[in-house]
Amino acid sequence: MKDAMTPATTIERLPIYYRCLQKLDRMDVDVISSKDLGERIGIPSTQVRKDLSYYGEFGRRGVGYEVPVLLKHLRKILGLAQEWEIVLVGAGDLGHALSKYGGFKKLGLNINHVLDVDSDKVGSKLGDVEIQHIDELVDVVKENNVDIGIIAAPGDYAQEIADELVGAGVKAIWNFAPARIKLPPEIELRNEDLSIGLISLAYHLSRK
Amino acid sequence: MKDAMTPATTIERLPIYYRCLQKLDRMDVDVISSKDLGERIGIPSTQVRKDLSYYGEFGRRGVGYEVPVLLKHLRKILGLAQEWEIVLVGAGDLGHALSKYGGFKKLGLNINHVLDVDSDKVGSKLGDVEIQHIDELVDVVKENNVDIGIIAAPGDYAQEIADELVGAGVKAIWNFAPARIKLPPEIELRNEDLSIGLISLAYHLSRK
Repeated sequence: MKDAMTPATTIERLPIYYRCLQKLDRMDVDVISSKDLGERIGIPSTQVRKDLSYYGEFGRRGVGYEVPVLLKHLRKILGLAQEWEIVLVGAGDLGHALSKYGGFKKLGLNINHVLDVDSDKVGSKLGDVEIQHIDELVDVVKENNVDIGIIAAPGDYAQEIADELVGAGVKAIWNFAPARIKLPPEIELRNEDLSIGLISLAYHLSRK
Repeated sequence: MKDAMTPATTIERLPIYYRCLQKLDRMDVDVISSKDLGERIGIPSTQVRKDLSYYGEFGRRGVGYEVPVLLKHLRKILGLAQEWEIVLVGAGDLGHALSKYGGFKKLGLNINHVLDVDSDKVGSKLGDVEIQHIDELVDVVKENNVDIGIIAAPGDYAQEIADELVGAGVKAIWNFAPARIKLPPEIELRNEDLSIGLISLAYHLSRK
């Protein structure tokens, strides 16, 4: 797989293909053309073919893609064929929203552990998961071989939490705190800056 | 301004520059080099200069950027020098998280109106804003000349809400519902798909 050559925009579209194919599969659609797939996603068929070509030859000329086959391939490509242990740090509003977010479950991704600093929240449940105290962070990560840490805590604590997660063995951090954090290069880090979306809209609107 | 030529990645970095400069300004830093600015943001100085060159000649060779001047320019470029009327549809967990999100306020962006379908929530407050019933949507948008609509509602209702917002005069939609919506091309639309971040991490981790 020519991973280093795959554009980030292609990678970001893979989950969109995946969910579209899941829907088609549920509707018992067997085959879909790149044109139809593109129309459902809102991109040209040439882009669909280019995106998927980074990962192999999945379609047949004049026929299209076999939905269950492409779905299986994408599942593997996206790393969804394996189980991930995920810890969420911060059971505030955003933590609640993330743990209830329907989009993750549809993809087979589950938040397995939730930590919070507030002792009053400890023991109560967020979905199916019992909230544990943040002092348990290192134990939770080590005992469960947690792969991914989601930080939904105030910005002032983000770096400290990230350092603790990484020190305990977490290999990827998804940071929602409005603060940029720094981590060793071998750790996958994604800063999810919610304000960017809103500013981007303001930016484009102010140009009209 | 060469807007059509500006890469999306440059536009997405502008708010990051802006917040970094706000911080420097509060620290009474008068001048910053592209190297120092890049280091704070985590990108090379050449990229800083390239990004800002799309909007004008702000720096002085061998000196750097005057922080208050660049801040003022960026504020205008980002559309933050004007007031935006913003309505949030959906006062669930995500709605709560968005309306409390510190990052917006720091940028001078405020959610002015909140709507929800649940009559029990109507009249209670989300921050400083009283929740109104979703039946008031058209009136709220028209009476207040609302510019931007944020959808934090279940996916099944997203398209309907978006259509109502646009019909009432909203010019930009920020959609958090896990469903892709379609709108006329003149409307700015941003689908914020939260699962993409998590899948992107799984994707990269599965390659290690």
